[in-house]
Amino acid sequence: MKAVLLTSPSALEAKPLKIASVGDPHPKDDEVLVKIEACGVCRSNLHMIEGDWMERGIPAKLPIIPGHEIVGRVVEIGNRVSHFRKGDRVGLQPLWSTCGRCSYCWTGKEELCQLKEITGETVDGGYAEYVIGKEDHLYLVPEAIPAVEAAPLFCPGITAYHAIKKAGDIMGKRVAIFGIGGVGHMALQFARIAGATTIAISRNPEHLRVAKDLGADECINGNDKSSLEKLKKEQAIDCGIVFAPSSAVAQLAMSLVKAGGKVIVGVQVELGSFSFVEEKVVLGTVIGPREEMKEVLQLAAEGKIKPICQGFSLEDAPEALMKLKKGEIVMRAVLVV
Amino acid sequence: MKAVLLTSPSALEAKPLKIASVGDPHPKDDEVLVKIEACGVCRSNLHMIEGDWMERGIPAKLPIIPGHEIVGRVVEIGNRVSHFRKGDRVGLQPLWSTCGRCSYCWTGKEELCQLKEITGETVDGGYAEYVIGKEDHLYLVPEAIPAVEAAPLFCPGITAYHAIKKAGDIMGKRVAIFGIGGVGHMALQFARIAGATTIAISRNPEHLRVAKDLGADECINGNDKSSLEKLKKEQAIDCGIVFAPSSAVAQLAMSLVKAGGKVIVGVQVELGSFSFVEEKVVLGTVIGPREEMKEVLQLAAEGKIKPICQGFSLEDAPEALMKLKKGEIVMRAVLVV
Amino acid sequence: MKAVLLTSPSALEAKPLKIASVGDPHPKDDEVLVKIEACGVCRSNLHMIEGDWMERGIPAKLPIIPGHEIVGRVVEIGNRVSHFRKGDRVGLQPLWSTCGRCSYCWTGKEELCQLKEITGETVDGGYAEYVIGKEDHLYLVPEAIPAVEAAPLFCPGITAYHAIKKAGDIMGKRVAIFGIGGVGHMALQFARIAGATTIAISRNPEHLRVAKDLGADECINGNDKSSLEKLKKEQAIDCGIVFAPSSAVAQLAMSLVKAGGKVIVGVQVELGSFSFVEEKVVLGTVIGPREEMKEVLQLAAEGKIKPICQGFSLEDAPEALMKLKKGEIVMRAVLVV
Amino acid sequence: MKAVLLTSPSALEAKPLKIASVGDPHPKDDEVLVKIEACGVCRSNLHMIEGDWMERGIPAKLPIIPGHEIVGRVVEIGNRVSHFRKGDRVGLQPLWSTCGRCSYCWTGKEELCQLKEITGETVDGGYAEYVIGKEDHLYLVPEAIPAVEAAPLFCPGITAYHAIKKAGDIMGKRVAIFGIGGVGHMALQFARIAGATTIAISRNPEHLRVAKDLGADECINGNDKSSLEKLKKEQAIDCGIVFAPSSAVAQLAMSLVKAGGKVIVGVQVELGSFSFVEEKVVLGTVIGPREEMKEVLQLAAEGKIKPICQGFSLEDAPEALMKLKKGEIVMRAVLVV
Repeated sequence: MKAVLLTSPSALEAKPLKIASVGDPHPKDDEVLVKIEACGVCRSNLHMIEGDWMERGIPAKLPIIPGHEIVGRVVEIGNRVSHFRKGDRVGLQPLWSTCGRCSYCWTGKEELCQLKEITGETVDGGYAEYVIGKEDHLYLVPEAIPAVEAAPLFCPGITAYHAIKKAGDIMGKRVAIFGIGGVGHMALQFARIAGATTIAISRNPEHLRVAKDLGADECINGNDKSSLEKLKKEQAIDCGIVFAPSSAVAQLAMSLVKAGGKVIVGVQVELGSFSFVEEKVVLGTVIGPREEMKEVLQLAAEGKIKPICQGFSLEDAPEALMKLKKGEIVMRAVLVV
Repeated sequence: MKAVLLTSPSALEAKPLKIASVGDPHPKDDEVLVKIEACGVCRSNLHMIEGDWMERGIPAKLPIIPGHEIVGRVVEIGNRVSHFRKGDRVGLQPLWSTCGRCSYCWTGKEELCQLKEITGETVDGGYAEYVIGKEDHLYLVPEAIPAVEAAPLFCPGITAYHAIKKAGDIMGKRVAIFGIGGVGHMALQFARIAGATTIAISRNPEHLRVAKDLGADECINGNDKSSLEKLKKEQAIDCGIVFAPSSAVAQLAMSLVKAGGKVIVGVQVELGSFSFVEEKVVLGTVIGPREEMKEVLQLAAEGKIKPICQGFSLEDAPEALMKLKKGEIVMRAVLVV
Repeated sequence: MKAVLLTSPSALEAKPLKIASVGDPHPKDDEVLVKIEACGVCRSNLHMIEGDWMERGIPAKLPIIPGHEIVGRVVEIGNRVSHFRKGDRVGLQPLWSTCGRCSYCWTGKEELCQLKEITGETVDGGYAEYVIGKEDHLYLVPEAIPAVEAAPLFCPGITAYHAIKKAGDIMGKRVAIFGIGGVGHMALQFARIAGATTIAISRNPEHLRVAKDLGADECINGNDKSSLEKLKKEQAIDCGIVFAPSSAVAQLAMSLVKAGGKVIVGVQVELGSFSFVEEKVVLGTVIGPREEMKEVLQLAAEGKIKPICQGFSLEDAPEALMKLKKGEIVMRAVLVV
Repeated sequence: MKAVLLTSPSALEAKPLKIASVGDPHPKDDEVLVKIEACGVCRSNLHMIEGDWMERGIPAKLPIIPGHEIVGRVVEIGNRVSHFRKGDRVGLQPLWSTCGRCSYCWTGKEELCQLKEITGETVDGGYAEYVIGKEDHLYLVPEAIPAVEAAPLFCPGITAYHAIKKAGDIMGKRVAIFGIGGVGHMALQFARIAGATTIAISRNPEHLRVAKDLGADECINGNDKSSLEKLKKEQAIDCGIVFAPSSAVAQLAMSLVKAGGKVIVGVQVELGSFSFVEEKVVLGTVIGPREEMKEVLQLAAEGKIKPICQGFSLEDAPEALMKLKKGEIVMRAVLVV
């Protein structure tokens, strides 16, 4: 099959990716072979490709096929598979497999399983024509959702949903989204349908326009100091969502959120010297568990949320990544296979 | 002033109410005098008027002016009032005052305060031209909300909101409203804006039509056994809301809600012989605290929720109550003064 | 092997049980063979044996070996078992297996899995010399805990723990245990070590003596109306625990618990006509999930909790059950094999 | 009366405090005059006295009498006081008054009220013979608790309790206390009585000895790298408590706590560059609300917790503070008046 292969991590400009022809994978035991329709292009793909995560042991093997937000159709099943059949339309999220036996797996926090395999990082992913999935971590994808819009549900979709779920019941509360990108524009949508008054904060006017189109109740430019100061004085923000990989943004969120409020953070940042006596809460977050993934698909099927995407061909993966690096992607790039 | 006076509780047919001219009340200390624009007509008014609650000591005095969901304008203030002034548009909910010193008042559950006064039940209420309120239990009402739509926010509005809040975070969950009346049609709206998939269940086709207009995802006639059976088999309902004063309805809710699910009940009912080993949860509920009342007003001001009402004149209070008794009110009757 | 066999459910007096010699079981795939040291005798065993649960399809097969709280040692393992080895000391709880794929299994509520197998009810249990377990539902049992005390951890222990966990954080709160039997005396211990002030309520003076020995802060005879009335007036009880299979007891709990309080119920009862406007909460409960089972074993290993037991030989299972039926067992009977 | 007066904040060595004779205060309206028995000496007193908090506007007036953990007896009451009488034994915590009208006051988070007055920081405190309190923020203190042990309940006691309450239900969980000082040794006690396995971590061998005496399950020297590394590898800590004003300690806590675990922080610190993708949670905390203060007093009355104190005379306040500054106080200094 045709695949985008990472052979040696390095700066994108040095062309670490090549389009190659590799042997077709075959599913065994509880595995399923999926013919890919679409695969999203995530910033974390870029990090891995450029070697930012070598220290953490990512990628776990080389060469590797990147890509972890995948939609396609079952074309072959392993001998122990009992819940999927050929023709099923399915998706894979970054959580390729979990151990099923640890405290996290037992308590609905499987995203923290220390023995998990990660799609496109420890096993081959979705920048290809086919991918192998585990039946316990596949999801039925309603036919009504176009592939290009379905793929991002499996990473920015579930990531944003899980983050908003950590905010708890937000009906009647005020939620600020700091940064309107791949995850941010989904978080905004989920916060809205959960009944929050939403505030989009970004330095990028185009991103603020997207936020406005998506129905944000308030859109504030991150450079507009007086509007930010007003938010702070009014103790108006109950919860802030931070996926922008910027310490300055995280610190802004910590500062603006009201006493006792929450800041939900899905990246690595420095909060600076911070006094916790105002009882603010910082909640780390990462992707999300299966039950929530199913709910995301249901909400998308009901037309309540919808990723904003740009399609690229599989061959154009390097170009999509370069545009992402340059900040030229509006919300999400998706490879349509 | 003119007022509707209950002198001796008895069946509505026996005319326990009379329109009377009574002395104008005057506010002292922390009290405020409100010129009434509108007051909702609640089923519990009917219970009190007909003497159903004499055992519980309600009404606490006679004669009494009924009515506990009130909107009007401040026309006079007591000497210790510091947060309201003449001309403010305000509302009163059933919680006329609380002690401020008990465990409930200290923990945000003031609706359970054992020393509370109840508007129109222990002190005079809103079936009149004027009413006295305590400044600590008044709420600013945005001018944009018409009086007739604002009044019901102060009883069915807050009651439904508090109930849905007890359901917790319901985005992506399925919530069934059992009975679409004064409170039910508000609960349906709140469940919707909190991101739930909503199921309206009623035996009244007109009420189901209202539910459909309000955007219920599914509308099921309570007599349609096969649809109900299907809901049960699919273990599809995460949460049921019961304000219909019917044990049969509460038992239906207990039966339909999935294992581990919640049933939120705001009335007196018999659940029958029930096995709790499926870990279902029953949550009692009643009106709601000040913080939530403020949120309800905010959501109404944003146009996200809106009571469905029928206006009556003050003199027609008996007629409005009789129609309520006969089941001829669609959602909520409101006296416009 | 030797086993206690139920061939045809009927009243205990009609001798539905016989001690028989049956073929030794052999583990396959993910199964493990356990040589039994001890197995507790649960009231639900009695219900099944006497045919009370035929309607619910329990037992699911005949003949069946009853018993679901089991401690023993691994003597043989199936070919796919990788986490246990011969010689491991292990225990089995009623949850013999779960599907691992449903919403309940995914969210840490596996006790509600609709495809679960139940030890001694749908598969053979522990009134025998050997039992087959699934490796995913076995637990290591510390050598320091005597078998006779370890066995009840796997049913009354986990059941009581799960119930107290549903009470949430109870440090500084008042918890009343209604009925001090197999589960009740464990619930009392857990409530104590969780920092609650504990109140034991029972009509059985011997049970109250046990409660006192276990450190209950207050012991009240259920016939002592004035003490009960005092509890009610003081709105003193934050949470009540009901495992006594009695509607009268459940109604007493509902009545005594303060407004906004919780009643946790693990049996089938009628609550009678109850007004939910005081915001009381009823939480159903049943056994408990794996994470909590592990915590129970840890707490027992630390010496913080300890079941009170009476030992019987395997052959004396009918006698132990008869004593249980007659109310002659103090806390828990355990078969020592 | 005699009082310790701060006239001009500066380093303790420069003697900013003087013992003075000042006019006796008199209570008006809802105020109560308390003859002081004992007042604790808090590190935050030291900060204020030395001028560390001038930027935050603390002290709010000069001269001021420091001291915010006070026990004494009512000797005079204002004309509106109705819940206390002369002779009542009462205590004051840092929360001298709250507005009673804001969202925080309404939802049981009054410690965050933006209009609160703070004992000994914005109004005169307890380094004196008498102090004025507001009746809504006084607490009855059981006679059985000696004054010297009761005073610290009103700051380290409530602070530690509130922090442990934020940990939620910790029965069967592992809680590490980082730093065993005034607040830490109380947090350790509360964690124990809430059923947690407790781990005390400190670089001070004397403090570890105290922890051991208080029943800590494990005591680890903060310099013992291998023991700390072992804790981390085992993912053993569910929750860490940090009141040590040290970024290094907070970072250690963040690092040791398991994925998904909580760190509760009551000081100002830098967490450094931290990746939140392991879903760790940081919860800020500060003193605590009235309901919890009452529970602390109840637990102390039951003998379940007990501060470790050293008594000083009022005149020796400067000496007590100097010892505190030098790290020579074991757990808590208390002025006995």
